[in-house]
Amino acid sequence: MAETFDKHVLDNGMVLLGEPMEAVESVAFGFMLPAGAAHLPEGCCGAASVIGDWIFRGAGDKDSRQLSDALDGLGLVRGRSVGSSHLTIGAALEAGNLAEALNLHADIILRPSLKEDQFELARQLAIDEVLSLDDDPRQKVMIKLRELFYPSPLGRSALGEISELKGLTAGTSKQIIRDNFDLSKTIFTVAGKYDFDAVCRQMEGLFESQPQQDGQSINSTPSAGQYTHIENDGAQVHIGLMTGTVKPTDEDYYNARVAVSVLSGGMSARLFTEVREKRGLCYAIGARYHALKEAAGVMCYAGTTPDKAQETLDCVIGEFNRLGDGISEEEIARAKVGLKSSLILQSESSSSRAGAIGSDHYMLGRVRDLDEIKDRIEQTTVDSVLAFLRNNKFKDFTVVTIGPRKLEIKN
Amino acid sequence: MAETFDKHVLDNGMVLLGEPMEAVESVAFGFMLPAGAAHLPEGCCGAASVIGDWIFRGAGDKDSRQLSDALDGLGLVRGRSVGSSHLTIGAALEAGNLAEALNLHADIILRPSLKEDQFELARQLAIDEVLSLDDDPRQKVMIKLRELFYPSPLGRSALGEISELKGLTAGTSKQIIRDNFDLSKTIFTVAGKYDFDAVCRQMEGLFESQPQQDGQSINSTPSAGQYTHIENDGAQVHIGLMTGTVKPTDEDYYNARVAVSVLSGGMSARLFTEVREKRGLCYAIGARYHALKEAAGVMCYAGTTPDKAQETLDCVIGEFNRLGDGISEEEIARAKVGLKSSLILQSESSSSRAGAIGSDHYMLGRVRDLDEIKDRIEQTTVDSVLAFLRNNKFKDFTVVTIGPRKLEIKN
Repeated sequence: MAETFDKHVLDNGMVLLGEPMEAVESVAFGFMLPAGAAHLPEGCCGAASVIGDWIFRGAGDKDSRQLSDALDGLGLVRGRSVGSSHLTIGAALEAGNLAEALNLHADIILRPSLKEDQFELARQLAIDEVLSLDDDPRQKVMIKLRELFYPSPLGRSALGEISELKGLTAGTSKQIIRDNFDLSKTIFTVAGKYDFDAVCRQMEGLFESQPQQDGQSINSTPSAGQYTHIENDGAQVHIGLMTGTVKPTDEDYYNARVAVSVLSGGMSARLFTEVREKRGLCYAIGARYHALKEAAGVMCYAGTTPDKAQETLDCVIGEFNRLGDGISEEEIARAKVGLKSSLILQSESSSSRAGAIGSDHYMLGRVRDLDEIKDRIEQTTVDSVLAFLRNNKFKDFTVVTIGPRKLEIKN
Repeated sequence: MAETFDKHVLDNGMVLLGEPMEAVESVAFGFMLPAGAAHLPEGCCGAASVIGDWIFRGAGDKDSRQLSDALDGLGLVRGRSVGSSHLTIGAALEAGNLAEALNLHADIILRPSLKEDQFELARQLAIDEVLSLDDDPRQKVMIKLRELFYPSPLGRSALGEISELKGLTAGTSKQIIRDNFDLSKTIFTVAGKYDFDAVCRQMEGLFESQPQQDGQSINSTPSAGQYTHIENDGAQVHIGLMTGTVKPTDEDYYNARVAVSVLSGGMSARLFTEVREKRGLCYAIGARYHALKEAAGVMCYAGTTPDKAQETLDCVIGEFNRLGDGISEEEIARAKVGLKSSLILQSESSSSRAGAIGSDHYMLGRVRDLDEIKDRIEQTTVDSVLAFLRNNKFKDFTVVTIGPRKLEIKN
């Protein structure tokens, strides 16, 4: 397990974080730009999705084609994601090509061409992507669930809304880039094989611009139980359910993670055995911990058929409620082993680590050592998890269903 | 890069393959059982999907619950897949728990409980999973495409057909397990941190049963161009397209891989730039090489809207046809870099490597060294790829569409 982290802060406030990994030939990096969906002006929901495409359509002295050619010429396996807080652009690649990849990304972030005709293409593709959700109800139910659970603007769909995307202009989008590509709040992460001194020198040269003004922070609390039903005459029912819980900064964070793992950490976990295996109620089920900096919850999905939908929902809520009644030593032991095992597997992927250290820094203000996480998981007990559940009862379920009929929420 | 492989063949013919990886704490393993969808009796399509669930519902002296508890207690991140040739069961986990995980898997493979009531639950979930495809047209179009392109039984859907699943009995499924869990044709793979001598000794003890009879091999050639349209009144059109090409055993295999990479290896590749970026025709597009032992093809997906569907299809077929007309040195160079880069990234994941060495052994009868693959990719040239395309023209496109209207195939 990796035990050391690299950290350097540029004069303009941009944070550089690194995690060296032995015996890998690759490196992964990411720029977490504070341009996530929750940070965009009212009515511009979806702009980050368009911008994330647009800035790659030419930058510096390269047109769209030349830029794509240059990036692919370095063998980049690219990743781009829009979350509530950040628009993250990054890649994994052969370690030897890192410096050249960073040069290109400095152009993309600081000197994108932002041509009007390219904007129209990017916007149209973003609209088509939202339309395509109609053919993907499983993803759609979870997007709607986040919207309902996290108060606006936190829960906004990163893909955007059709009506707002139709009204979005190149001018507005340029202004959003100027306002939100704020280097003083940008986190750069790198993991794998790299020379941190060389990375720091290069990043200083590339990103030595002035810090920008402070944006405002967002304060809000999750929704206290709402139900939205989306009518759809399919053969399936998609159920999304979410309930508030503690944030990663909370003392009880690890108790919450272990509790969720007892509920849904593996095939021996309660949701899987009670809902799927014993009763055959649904073909797909899972719950996971989901956190933004401002709020957190347990998010659950179940896919079933109309005749089993009500029983599935009752059963899922029943398992959430029942958890505080008692947990066995064996369940806690398995939950811990499962959490630690996924930690080890993630620790071996440079892309996972680059994402994890950036997220830790943003959420906690520091990067957690893997041994610290393992120790904290290890310290949880049946008593500590049950005490957490007593003080933080799962309740006020926010529910979204897609299917032929509305269901009844029996808390 | 890893340079050495471990290999040992048990007396009963079962092949054990290993790839040691430095500096990882995890290990991944897989049992490739010759019970893939193409190897099942007529009318039992989907049985492998049911069996892959059923055998985990109790084995050896453990009932379903105890077995799940034991597997999760080892922190296994499980993977199960049904392909044309194999039902593969495996996991990634902390290296220290490998021996115990193998003991449990010997029970699952050799001594599954196969209780009738558990069969009904497994069968019903398999039926629900097929039904759920109606809500996932993107996956559905590719399943139908494989069915149409590869002749029966090669292209069979691993999920099965509702009518056949409804007729499937526990008795038939037990017989399939007896006939198809043939250790003499089973490939066991392990990658990551392990002691190969210890693994071999343990596997000898666990799997010392007699070899079973030879099954027949399957010979067939891919379909020569057919079109199936599935009516669906959604806002999207899903296009699947496939054309035959050389198999991994062919001298021209690497030329084929580079050609497909020129077409769809990255965001600078032809399909992405011509169809998505320049014309904004579709929100999702990609082509990839797809091989069974018996036949291979290039498989392409495009997701678009009804008004752009015909132009998208014309444009995609146009790019396939145009490829043989000329390729630049730069395109070949980028295609090679892209292929080598993904190779390096895959080489760092124990699960990927466990899968790759098993697939190599099955397809080629030997495991390829990563340096060999890199060298062979490096040896391709504009001339060699164009010569390959002249002798193996992309033609006779098999097409499946899901959408409101039938399209026209203009070859």
